[in-house]
Amino acid sequence: MRNIALLIEYDGGHFSGWQSQRDGVITIQTVIENALSKIVGHSVKIYGSGRTDVGVHACGQVANFYTDNQIPCFKLCLGANILLAPYVSIRKAVDVQDDFNARRCAVKKLYKFCMYSSPTPSPLKNPTHMQVYKPLDGAAMQKAANYIVGKKDFRCFMASGSGVEDTVREVYSLEITQNGDVTILNICGNAFLYNMVRIIAGTLINVGLHKIEPEYMKTIIESKNRKLCGKTAWARGLTLVKVFYEPDIFN
Amino acid sequence: MRNIALLIEYDGGHFSGWQSQRDGVITIQTVIENALSKIVGHSVKIYGSGRTDVGVHACGQVANFYTDNQIPCFKLCLGANILLAPYVSIRKAVDVQDDFNARRCAVKKLYKFCMYSSPTPSPLKNPTHMQVYKPLDGAAMQKAANYIVGKKDFRCFMASGSGVEDTVREVYSLEITQNGDVTILNICGNAFLYNMVRIIAGTLINVGLHKIEPEYMKTIIESKNRKLCGKTAWARGLTLVKVFYEPDIFN
Repeated sequence: MRNIALLIEYDGGHFSGWQSQRDGVITIQTVIENALSKIVGHSVKIYGSGRTDVGVHACGQVANFYTDNQIPCFKLCLGANILLAPYVSIRKAVDVQDDFNARRCAVKKLYKFCMYSSPTPSPLKNPTHMQVYKPLDGAAMQKAANYIVGKKDFRCFMASGSGVEDTVREVYSLEITQNGDVTILNICGNAFLYNMVRIIAGTLINVGLHKIEPEYMKTIIESKNRKLCGKTAWARGLTLVKVFYEPDIFN
Repeated sequence: MRNIALLIEYDGGHFSGWQSQRDGVITIQTVIENALSKIVGHSVKIYGSGRTDVGVHACGQVANFYTDNQIPCFKLCLGANILLAPYVSIRKAVDVQDDFNARRCAVKKLYKFCMYSSPTPSPLKNPTHMQVYKPLDGAAMQKAANYIVGKKDFRCFMASGSGVEDTVREVYSLEITQNGDVTILNICGNAFLYNMVRIIAGTLINVGLHKIEPEYMKTIIESKNRKLCGKTAWARGLTLVKVFYEPDIFN
């Protein structure tokens, strides 16, 4: 039995999230499973590194699936991408060891959250960026972001209704970059709570708009209180950039 | 009578080009004229800096129109953008002198052409990039691009069927930048022939793929022969970035 890992890119704006749901709802998992089933000739279940919400994009989602079909990986990509076009693509496929599991073997994940500052909308940025109506103070945001780096209880950044008990996660890096009217937040961590990156983005936007002081981020984290944070930032601004494995499976 | 200049952005993938055509064809000019007419209360004709083809984008198209309506410019943007969302936006509007005309007063234009190199498609890049299946040699492309800079007869880069007689244009700069799998061509000139930038892009792609030598660009230009050039590159890779005026009207 082959175990094949897939590097997947998608424009989340065209799907009801990653995870398969009831019939009639178009999810990324479903369309990929349907495409692969047609190619390998049997029903396929894919195991993703994690779910992404409605509207969230990925250029580095990873999933794996099992098959006895002997199709070469590059032909699998070629065939699947004809069926998947234009909003999902399998960028790479590789044979991996039997015990590889895209979720359990992931050691860290990198997300980016993109914003632009303007009173008027940008049709070219809107699909992948959140519009913030005023300029953002990137230096203040970076100062606040530095409080987030480390192994901490991030309960404050978890959406209500999530049943998770252990809310300790480790954030390895959180960098703010700015170029013209665009501000990008790059966050790398071992795992993330439900809506964590979007709530962090919403809170950092409040810092960037000078609604709260950078130092207040420390208070927010220690409070473990979701209500002290900013709003959950727009899904479309979020992209799963890379899932890390050791060793790296795609090159 | 007020003369108002508009800075316009659009995702060209959703329109049949810039210019108004027969009824039932959705063009950028038509949707903007319709939106402005509703706001100022009379029919509006806008004068663009130039047409863009089906599929070509702009983040810096400029147009002007006349009205007696005294609506403040920021309210005009606000109202028009509600009607125009999500694929067209008026990023700025400013009152200009009576004799300002977006086409006749333009002194130069900047376009960018974006490509990415990969055997598999990228759903997030596809709306604004051309997919080139193999890596591009950026240094070779820059070497060839340098032959294009200057005031020259660019007949070779003009699509057949264009009735233009005077095919001399001045290219002020042509720069190739690369970042990961993305290659961007930035070209600035006083004016461009029909399909000129896309034919230049197609020819530079042939250089980047080592199908022709960089030095051959000199021969191509001197030949004035369209047949020596590469294919017309994909419309979706092209974006009108900025139209320059003296003095700058949007600052």
